[in-house]
Amino acid sequence: MQIDLNADLGESFGRWSLGDDDAMLEVVTSANVACGFHAGDPTVLRHSCEGAAARGVAIGAQVGYRDLAGFGRRFIDVVPAELTDDVLYQIGALEAFARVAGTRVRYVKPHGALYNAIVHHEEQAAAVVEAVVQYDRSLPVLGLPGSAWLRLAEEAGLTTVGEAFADRAYTPEGRLVSRREPGAVLHEPDEIAQRCVRIATEGELVAVDGSVVPAPAGSLCVHGDSPGAVEIARRVRAGLDAAGVGVSPFAGEPT
Amino acid sequence: MQIDLNADLGESFGRWSLGDDDAMLEVVTSANVACGFHAGDPTVLRHSCEGAAARGVAIGAQVGYRDLAGFGRRFIDVVPAELTDDVLYQIGALEAFARVAGTRVRYVKPHGALYNAIVHHEEQAAAVVEAVVQYDRSLPVLGLPGSAWLRLAEEAGLTTVGEAFADRAYTPEGRLVSRREPGAVLHEPDEIAQRCVRIATEGELVAVDGSVVPAPAGSLCVHGDSPGAVEIARRVRAGLDAAGVGVSPFAGEPT
Amino acid sequence: MQIDLNADLGESFGRWSLGDDDAMLEVVTSANVACGFHAGDPTVLRHSCEGAAARGVAIGAQVGYRDLAGFGRRFIDVVPAELTDDVLYQIGALEAFARVAGTRVRYVKPHGALYNAIVHHEEQAAAVVEAVVQYDRSLPVLGLPGSAWLRLAEEAGLTTVGEAFADRAYTPEGRLVSRREPGAVLHEPDEIAQRCVRIATEGELVAVDGSVVPAPAGSLCVHGDSPGAVEIARRVRAGLDAAGVGVSPFAGEPT
Amino acid sequence: MQIDLNADLGESFGRWSLGDDDAMLEVVTSANVACGFHAGDPTVLRHSCEGAAARGVAIGAQVGYRDLAGFGRRFIDVVPAELTDDVLYQIGALEAFARVAGTRVRYVKPHGALYNAIVHHEEQAAAVVEAVVQYDRSLPVLGLPGSAWLRLAEEAGLTTVGEAFADRAYTPEGRLVSRREPGAVLHEPDEIAQRCVRIATEGELVAVDGSVVPAPAGSLCVHGDSPGAVEIARRVRAGLDAAGVGVSPFAGEPT
Repeated sequence: MQIDLNADLGESFGRWSLGDDDAMLEVVTSANVACGFHAGDPTVLRHSCEGAAARGVAIGAQVGYRDLAGFGRRFIDVVPAELTDDVLYQIGALEAFARVAGTRVRYVKPHGALYNAIVHHEEQAAAVVEAVVQYDRSLPVLGLPGSAWLRLAEEAGLTTVGEAFADRAYTPEGRLVSRREPGAVLHEPDEIAQRCVRIATEGELVAVDGSVVPAPAGSLCVHGDSPGAVEIARRVRAGLDAAGVGVSPFAGEPT
Repeated sequence: MQIDLNADLGESFGRWSLGDDDAMLEVVTSANVACGFHAGDPTVLRHSCEGAAARGVAIGAQVGYRDLAGFGRRFIDVVPAELTDDVLYQIGALEAFARVAGTRVRYVKPHGALYNAIVHHEEQAAAVVEAVVQYDRSLPVLGLPGSAWLRLAEEAGLTTVGEAFADRAYTPEGRLVSRREPGAVLHEPDEIAQRCVRIATEGELVAVDGSVVPAPAGSLCVHGDSPGAVEIARRVRAGLDAAGVGVSPFAGEPT
Repeated sequence: MQIDLNADLGESFGRWSLGDDDAMLEVVTSANVACGFHAGDPTVLRHSCEGAAARGVAIGAQVGYRDLAGFGRRFIDVVPAELTDDVLYQIGALEAFARVAGTRVRYVKPHGALYNAIVHHEEQAAAVVEAVVQYDRSLPVLGLPGSAWLRLAEEAGLTTVGEAFADRAYTPEGRLVSRREPGAVLHEPDEIAQRCVRIATEGELVAVDGSVVPAPAGSLCVHGDSPGAVEIARRVRAGLDAAGVGVSPFAGEPT
Repeated sequence: MQIDLNADLGESFGRWSLGDDDAMLEVVTSANVACGFHAGDPTVLRHSCEGAAARGVAIGAQVGYRDLAGFGRRFIDVVPAELTDDVLYQIGALEAFARVAGTRVRYVKPHGALYNAIVHHEEQAAAVVEAVVQYDRSLPVLGLPGSAWLRLAEEAGLTTVGEAFADRAYTPEGRLVSRREPGAVLHEPDEIAQRCVRIATEGELVAVDGSVVPAPAGSLCVHGDSPGAVEIARRVRAGLDAAGVGVSPFAGEPT
């Protein structure tokens, strides 16, 4: 039994801090590092990459829309060819810091509104896939099981990894409960930790209606910037360790 | 006899076009491609890199201050460590497009106010050198002969290449005449072309007072966006060809 | 017979020029001045406002999405309350320059993707209306006849003015032919001028199928940055003058 | 005896929060509200203006360099005429929210590196003065006693108000001890409060060498975003109240 633990990091910008990256890097095995378009300035990228490299945490490119004011959380109707270029730019920028830290960008995970858009938006999903294909076909991509993003990536010959959300409620159909509905986000650390163990060991979880739904996942996503984020992440990690689940990056060094 | 011909390219941004990159790429042997901080969006970077690669033109990272509104022409008192990171970010971003185009970033040339600042500003010059050292010690750097930038780069073990400006007047001491003074910029294509031939063949030029000053240069800089830029660049190239001067990039593929 | 002639101006940014504002200001009676979010830096805003004021041209706030890289041409799914604030910010910024030039912002016209979005997007349309209501209820708004934008503005008690496009083909239903279809944009200056005269004098135009459709308009929009823009605008103006149509701003000084 | 208490507010941006504006607005009498160039998005500006207006706190335009990544803390060698325009743009933008909140921008206080630059940089100081003169000559300006900024503003006929820093050590010459030196910043709330009372009641303070230096000030600046900022501000306010010093804005509603 083996699983990866990922979180969004490197989301500070200039004077503005967000999250406790150093603490999170002690817990996760994959760091989705923001690349400067929705968050993250160059000095933040360096800090995140050096911190990840020093701890053996895999660095992923957390690519997003060019939207600092909206933190990448607003859908932007970018022309697909330009989106491909935006993603390439971000991966390349992060790669510089990964290399300086002695490692490489090991995977790609879109952020925020882009993450949500490419669950269904075929053109934008294909555009992000195209960026990875052009940059390095050996890079795995991380995302929502069942999304256009993972489907198109797989069709393009990329390695795909599905993730489950540690602290999100699921519908009986296995989808995320909308954040607009009550109970969409779990807050109880022990409950979250147990849920993660079940996903990792049984490949299933309990939906909002009490039914058990399949939840195959190569990685568990924990949040890095919510209140109590570090504590929850630690409990998840401890729970997995106690259950004998090996926690390690899904992505190795690119060849 | 051999010399390189370089120009600033990739300086359009979104809806805004600047210069005729495709025409200039037919003439120069090295393209200083803007990296997005003072000019150049990702789609522009791709176009410049693909155009350069298709013609065997060497791609250089034209790194600048983060200042779209000022086009990188305003000195910014950036903390040196942050400047190092800003430069790394830009080189990495451009590298993604160079790689997609089947080549690599082959050299680094700072832009605008940064170019001018690091003639004398030791801390910023050292910060840019540090970025190149960290990124890839095999990358040559291009700049003004006698600048802190080239001196510190050389001390750090980097390959340095000095450039002469095709269309700028020089003082008897071999410095550029300030743009604020009349006659600082030459406009007559034939005069400019002859001047370039003399620099390439004799390593000298005629200063504003008529005296002959040494002008050793591994590269000649022609402007890409002034009125008549393309015509002047073509005359310079034709003049060099006619004089039997080989025109080729100073920088090969990095190993 | 009386009509207004409007064009988008102030869309340069820093080093990048777009359009010939000074020439256009000799022709139009209303200037939609960009406010810095999709185009226009403060110095450009000042130049546009001073130029408009000196010629008695009414200044309108050409508000857009915060998207310099996309020139405001990409839909952004902004939260309505934030869109209201973005619009207020832009109007206020432009107002400073209008006041310095001795006049005032006299109307509001959304730009690009925002213009298109609020034809149908009720929440965003309401958000822009809300900004105008909060800022100054006496400001008229300019837009597409039949749009949610004008309908909601009218319901909110604002003065609304519909515009027709001088150089765009219309369907028999009175809608714009999509730019993706051939013949969507007219290029022949005389044809465009005659069309404008007919709109101004008869309130109708000839659609792509030859049928005559009603086209009531308080303002004619001419483009400011396409090739031949100035020449087309001059012909339209000359045609209107020759036909005895008075050309003057629809919006007076706010009280 | 009467003094004003000012603090920098409105310095959050998008997803990134900074300082506790609501708490600070309960204490200060003047709010230096960031205007979007170095910090503050439109929604933050609205919140700050509404919060200030609701509590009778005077709103000042905290204008800065266009530098989100650097938080306005890096000197930028802006051309003076462009700096004038940048300042006008910011004042106008903030004014929109002040008006919506039922009040007006009542004064101007430059931020960060611009604040420091115009202590000595005559051209930039004159450029900021020029912006205020053009915008509204009745607006007072706030700054460092003895600065070029206040001197030139006074020469231009503007009302000037000097401020003292509640938590900064002073040299025997009455200048601020550089932040690079130990003891430059005071942290003990009671000491800070007593110091403020002495400034307000005696117009003097004790310098680092124990000598008493004159410190005439119309306003006391307390910090809004440092650890313990709110607590220190409350103590200062309580100290002034206890000493019978009236605390009220120096700037009334513009006429």
